[in-house]
Amino acid sequence: MALDFTSVEDAESILREVWDLIDIVEVGTPFIIKEGLGIVEKIKKEYPKLTVLSDLKIMDAGEHESKAAFESKADIITVLGVSDNATIIAAVTQAKKINKEVMVDMICVEDLEKRVAEIDKLGVDYICVHTAFDVQATGKNPLEELQKVKKILKNAKTAVAGGVKVETLRPIIKEDPDIIIVGGAITGQKDKRSAVLKMKEIMKQAEEQKNEY
Amino acid sequence: MALDFTSVEDAESILREVWDLIDIVEVGTPFIIKEGLGIVEKIKKEYPKLTVLSDLKIMDAGEHESKAAFESKADIITVLGVSDNATIIAAVTQAKKINKEVMVDMICVEDLEKRVAEIDKLGVDYICVHTAFDVQATGKNPLEELQKVKKILKNAKTAVAGGVKVETLRPIIKEDPDIIIVGGAITGQKDKRSAVLKMKEIMKQAEEQKNEY
Repeated sequence: MALDFTSVEDAESILREVWDLIDIVEVGTPFIIKEGLGIVEKIKKEYPKLTVLSDLKIMDAGEHESKAAFESKADIITVLGVSDNATIIAAVTQAKKINKEVMVDMICVEDLEKRVAEIDKLGVDYICVHTAFDVQATGKNPLEELQKVKKILKNAKTAVAGGVKVETLRPIIKEDPDIIIVGGAITGQKDKRSAVLKMKEIMKQAEEQKNEY
Repeated sequence: MALDFTSVEDAESILREVWDLIDIVEVGTPFIIKEGLGIVEKIKKEYPKLTVLSDLKIMDAGEHESKAAFESKADIITVLGVSDNATIIAAVTQAKKINKEVMVDMICVEDLEKRVAEIDKLGVDYICVHTAFDVQATGKNPLEELQKVKKILKNAKTAVAGGVKVETLRPIIKEDPDIIIVGGAITGQKDKRSAVLKMKEIMKQAEEQKNEY
């Protein structure tokens, strides 16, 4: 679950409501920018059993920024796929030293297949296909990209983000991504707990169907 | 002058030393990530006459992130040239409402000339050619890119960043950029004030030479 457009107070309240149902809490870019990395440390301290994803979208200064993120106790950090390989490699080097993970966010990468093949050789843990918030209104969603990426990857695991909601969850699960990131479809609902439960039910059904075959 | 890899304490001390010599103070990406946007507001409050550049490197959620940055009293904010046009346009829209400015950072843009021509039509105030910190060790510097961009721009002003120092300043000034961003070549020096004075002297000489012709 991603916390993007939220105050510290609202984030705390959302986490109290759903923390036992989720695996990963993502501290989103707008939230980090507003509060600084202290908010990542605070959340990890309060929920030590949750994996904390720090969505820094690192574009440069890979060593310095990933170090700072890991010092604030993030378990996974994001680097942009449009950044230089040197930046991605620097973040991976920091992560490997302390057994933490790097996710590369493929948002706005032009030649997705070519870039995925390159980045897959750099030792990153996850490749995340991500439809930008600013283009979700066009109806674009990350499913097709996930299918493409799945065919190419030899090393990294997959994550998917960008407007995922109850209605779009089933076909995404079918592609078997390792992480599904959901933001507004939980945090924007009045009853957040039942939104998560609904999604988990869909995931469970999909799992059972898979096991039947 | 850019404040990137610094503590709040060191930033305050650097500003006390050189504030009267500089025009713009850039609150760099790693500094914002660490401290949150509160640090931008703090610096603007302490130095209201300095233009404050908030180097957010916005990649998505252009409306929300630029709003947050302008609420923290930034005068100029950065958006990434690799982001979607929708993101750049959203930031420009916010800026124009309150008479503030948007700089687009061309770091890691592959087809620079094509993308500059596109972005120049979106109403942005500055196009910044920027050699990534992580690739400066290869000897790359932003001069050649500045020359290319200058030939294309019809609307936006120019900025240049990425490893600019005393030794590389003259040829850059010759290209007449509107903003020259210097980080480590000031903040990494023991005597920061004399580093700035040396650069200003070079700028003055270049100006005089230009006026002679």
